[in-house]
Amino acid sequence: MNFIDLEYVPGKDDVIAEYYVEPNRISFEKACNHIAGESSIGTWTSLTTMKERILRDLKPSVYYINKKERIMRIAYPLELFELGNIPQIMSSVGGNVFGMKVIRNLRLLDIHFPAMYIKSFKGPVHGISGVRKITGVRKRPLLGTIVKPKLGLDEKEHAKSAYDSWTGGLDLVKDDENLTNMKFNRFEKRVAETLKMRDKAERETGERKFYMPNITAEANEMIRRAEIVKGYGGEYVMVDIVSVGWSALQTVREFNENMRFVIHAHRAGHAAFTKNLKHGISMLVVAKLARLIGVDQIHIGTADVGKMEGSREEITEIEDEIEESLILEKGHVLEQKWHHIKPVFAVASGGLHPGSIPRLVKRMGCNVIIQAGGGVHGHPKGSLAGAKAMRQALEAVMEGVSLKEYAKRHEELREALNKWK
Amino acid sequence: MNFIDLEYVPGKDDVIAEYYVEPNRISFEKACNHIAGESSIGTWTSLTTMKERILRDLKPSVYYINKKERIMRIAYPLELFELGNIPQIMSSVGGNVFGMKVIRNLRLLDIHFPAMYIKSFKGPVHGISGVRKITGVRKRPLLGTIVKPKLGLDEKEHAKSAYDSWTGGLDLVKDDENLTNMKFNRFEKRVAETLKMRDKAERETGERKFYMPNITAEANEMIRRAEIVKGYGGEYVMVDIVSVGWSALQTVREFNENMRFVIHAHRAGHAAFTKNLKHGISMLVVAKLARLIGVDQIHIGTADVGKMEGSREEITEIEDEIEESLILEKGHVLEQKWHHIKPVFAVASGGLHPGSIPRLVKRMGCNVIIQAGGGVHGHPKGSLAGAKAMRQALEAVMEGVSLKEYAKRHEELREALNKWK
Repeated sequence: MNFIDLEYVPGKDDVIAEYYVEPNRISFEKACNHIAGESSIGTWTSLTTMKERILRDLKPSVYYINKKERIMRIAYPLELFELGNIPQIMSSVGGNVFGMKVIRNLRLLDIHFPAMYIKSFKGPVHGISGVRKITGVRKRPLLGTIVKPKLGLDEKEHAKSAYDSWTGGLDLVKDDENLTNMKFNRFEKRVAETLKMRDKAERETGERKFYMPNITAEANEMIRRAEIVKGYGGEYVMVDIVSVGWSALQTVREFNENMRFVIHAHRAGHAAFTKNLKHGISMLVVAKLARLIGVDQIHIGTADVGKMEGSREEITEIEDEIEESLILEKGHVLEQKWHHIKPVFAVASGGLHPGSIPRLVKRMGCNVIIQAGGGVHGHPKGSLAGAKAMRQALEAVMEGVSLKEYAKRHEELREALNKWK
Repeated sequence: MNFIDLEYVPGKDDVIAEYYVEPNRISFEKACNHIAGESSIGTWTSLTTMKERILRDLKPSVYYINKKERIMRIAYPLELFELGNIPQIMSSVGGNVFGMKVIRNLRLLDIHFPAMYIKSFKGPVHGISGVRKITGVRKRPLLGTIVKPKLGLDEKEHAKSAYDSWTGGLDLVKDDENLTNMKFNRFEKRVAETLKMRDKAERETGERKFYMPNITAEANEMIRRAEIVKGYGGEYVMVDIVSVGWSALQTVREFNENMRFVIHAHRAGHAAFTKNLKHGISMLVVAKLARLIGVDQIHIGTADVGKMEGSREEITEIEDEIEESLILEKGHVLEQKWHHIKPVFAVASGGLHPGSIPRLVKRMGCNVIIQAGGGVHGHPKGSLAGAKAMRQALEAVMEGVSLKEYAKRHEELREALNKWK
């Protein structure tokens, strides 16, 4: 079967996938053809059960080939996909194709979704404007921390660390990705203790404060844990979206239609398939799927400032994709209209500290949640001072003053800058 | 913090992870140290919140380093992990570590689970012996097909194709990975029509026949679809485990404690992170996690016979891991005692046809489910003849007769061998 048709003009209902392709001992065109077939209606041999009708209605078209850059695009009829089912589309355009012997490397760079597909999802309950409304923080970046060490504190120590972070000036406190319901730190007790300290911090600071408990687990256990959070008056839940998978993330979002949590998406494990630029799936695709399903906040990287991968350019592309309502085609980013789907808050996290804030805000703007774990709890004077230093650094940036200058009058910031040069 | 301790001898309760490591501009030892910290209690800077108690009880040890082969092993105290929660352990040993700038490539090769961790999971409801009992096939490999084309047939055409496959001699008929609840082929109607034809095929052949409907979707929708299957008298469900993710797979297994389906695990998308031998997560780890959670059958590759990736050696290692109750340490495979967890049936699928069977059985033994999609429905005389040819090829192998010889008296096999040389 031939799926290559360079004359084909994608229709408004087509799903479009863009791939980087390195064939293995076959031509580039043949490789593209195999990928189009395996991800839709084809297989490795001719079929006696194939029908004219199927070829007419469901045949995908490889309509764009750039051999030099090893890029190609496939337009798929929408009927190949079940509306509202992310695992199904991933089994198609992000499925068997990676494992074929005739392909050396293959990377799914982007997916364009037509209006009808987009409309089968609800997207974020709150999105950026909702989070700003709930937090009461109108313009500046939000500041958060991850309680550290990742594991080992008991429930009260955890709550105390959170309290110090809030009273020092941070808005959000998050569990680390591997902290769930542990022997030494039980989920329900941690939530109860920490939210109690949140109330205290709110009373003392006059600011709204938020705790993001990690509910990562089996799907219905996540719902049970979310209900516990609700019971203690929490407004946020955190889910590790790659570790739990698309299906359970959809479950959490379904549930959230009534519960109205802000969903914070961590992405541990994404780099197992996003890091190699020639193979796997791009973080842009992960972020798009997460927006479509409906997380409110998502980790996208630190724009070459912190300890994690991700170039400035890549992070800018991803941030635009999750924040804007219309994305125009540019380079390897496909056109995307987001219709009713709200914008998602970008989270920068990993190896950040007060000194990172000016460059981060320059690169990612004010619609960003800046999180520092070690960069708060590693402050020489402890978590409270660490949180103060973060807030001071942000104040300096918002006032247009250099950190060095601001640090002259702010001891905590000065100490932070001395430790992390 | 230093996590390297080559004198350390892992205790019986330790979780052990083996990694292939390529550092990025730091020494091998430093890279190992970063990985151990990031996957447990450490971060990129010193912490004022660290406690003696935490270091004593929760510190992991890099206890084995083979710099030449770039291999290292980390022993983790069991308390770092929540029992019964696969997403949590993957957020730890298969999480942030892949995305650190100080690492160029990193591959999680194997995980050893201690008894207490294993005991927090139920494993397969049926396993190999259960599937053999249900199907009534005692010794030979099971034969299956995937209805082809992947998408496009309506419910009745689908059921007819299944009927031809069963009456031709196959045991199992499976939906393809991208066939769920489609506009042109609705899930419930397909299940109803196909199971009706199964009853007919059973009456006519006197053999048990099985349909594996693809329930891949949002977690609770999967449960709803499984209930539909039960309502029409089905005994199998198929789940695309990578596309749905670990959390929802656990949900399906929880549900299955009462429903007693045979769970067939497809693995579309695994190669996005298993294919590159220097980065990502090995298929061995995926198969171990699937066994632990409790699928009954899983695609593991075709031992270099079909269209999909996977060397003979790798497939043999994976097959042993899912079939045996005790795995001894060998090369990069860690020791593993499976305790109460039943063996899982290996599925070979992808680019297979009757001519593949002798080599497949030689390499994978008789405890294997051999599936051919194109290799059945691509037979010059159609699906019925294709199914006959598969069964004939298996009979020949079981009788120790060459296919060439057997084909002299079996027309369908002869035609298949002529098409696929």
